[in-house]
Amino acid sequence: MSVEEGLLVVFTGSGKGKTTAALGMAMRAAGHGMPVLILQFIKGSWSYGELSSFENIANVTLKPLGTGFTWKKENLDEDRKLAARGWAEAVSEMHRGHYKLIVLDELNVVLSYGLLALDPVLDALRSRPPGLHVVATGRGAPEELIAMADLVTEMKQVKHPYHDRGLKAQKGIEF
Amino acid sequence: MSVEEGLLVVFTGSGKGKTTAALGMAMRAAGHGMPVLILQFIKGSWSYGELSSFENIANVTLKPLGTGFTWKKENLDEDRKLAARGWAEAVSEMHRGHYKLIVLDELNVVLSYGLLALDPVLDALRSRPPGLHVVATGRGAPEELIAMADLVTEMKQVKHPYHDRGLKAQKGIEF
Repeated sequence: MSVEEGLLVVFTGSGKGKTTAALGMAMRAAGHGMPVLILQFIKGSWSYGELSSFENIANVTLKPLGTGFTWKKENLDEDRKLAARGWAEAVSEMHRGHYKLIVLDELNVVLSYGLLALDPVLDALRSRPPGLHVVATGRGAPEELIAMADLVTEMKQVKHPYHDRGLKAQKGIEF
Repeated sequence: MSVEEGLLVVFTGSGKGKTTAALGMAMRAAGHGMPVLILQFIKGSWSYGELSSFENIANVTLKPLGTGFTWKKENLDEDRKLAARGWAEAVSEMHRGHYKLIVLDELNVVLSYGLLALDPVLDALRSRPPGLHVVATGRGAPEELIAMADLVTEMKQVKHPYHDRGLKAQKGIEF
């Protein structure tokens, strides 16, 4: 791997800050003039706050993919079809060559729930265009993805106000 | 503590994503119309990428404080004076009442190097206006700060390309 090759970055673990760190990376790259695509695999994990902030940033495109997941055993087949469709779009965007950074938000969760088969995903990541940086977020990143990644941070929950003190999420701050 | 009170959030650990997660939170809050101040305790930890991205975001003010730190033993007194001046500004901004979220970027590092005395910092954080959210980033967060915080995530380094493979940082991606 040379320095010109794109990095595969994984943010995982049960602590807060995984998607948020990916958003920060997106901003950073966009600030360098790199076109960034954020594919959101699970709808609802983002608030109006993020969406409206990103509308003001040049070079960043945000695309929700995961509309309609039920996360119910009895609908597993349907959820798998949705995930496959989303993944097909991710692959197509990877090969379009326009973006320099693609964030696959919550991909790890989709993989850990078995909604996508791991091997084809790893293959597609491995054969992505050189120079394309990819960030995969979400808890439960599979070992094989971690093994393949160039940079992995586990966000470890040390303390959480909503769990520890029974507080409700706060608008603009929950993340 | 009621839900209306501001949270103290700490991002620490040796993994990547601490400042980046704080930047993401800043965006999120700003997207909700909350005025956000980012005080950068250590100059140079941010690139042109972040700076130019934040220029395009309403509600976010970015202010570098830590110009001139030498991080050398022989200049400890001077570095302490600089840190004290920076901290005084942080306290003054906390009490101004304008901002709803203040990011104290790399404060943990300044504390762990002993450039600021811990107790006055904890006191000031404890007596900040109710409703003000504060995020402190940087490795080496003191135990007492962690104990006081409402939400703490340790960014744990699982893999790092520059350490593990001897790669150089990449423009727009290093963070």
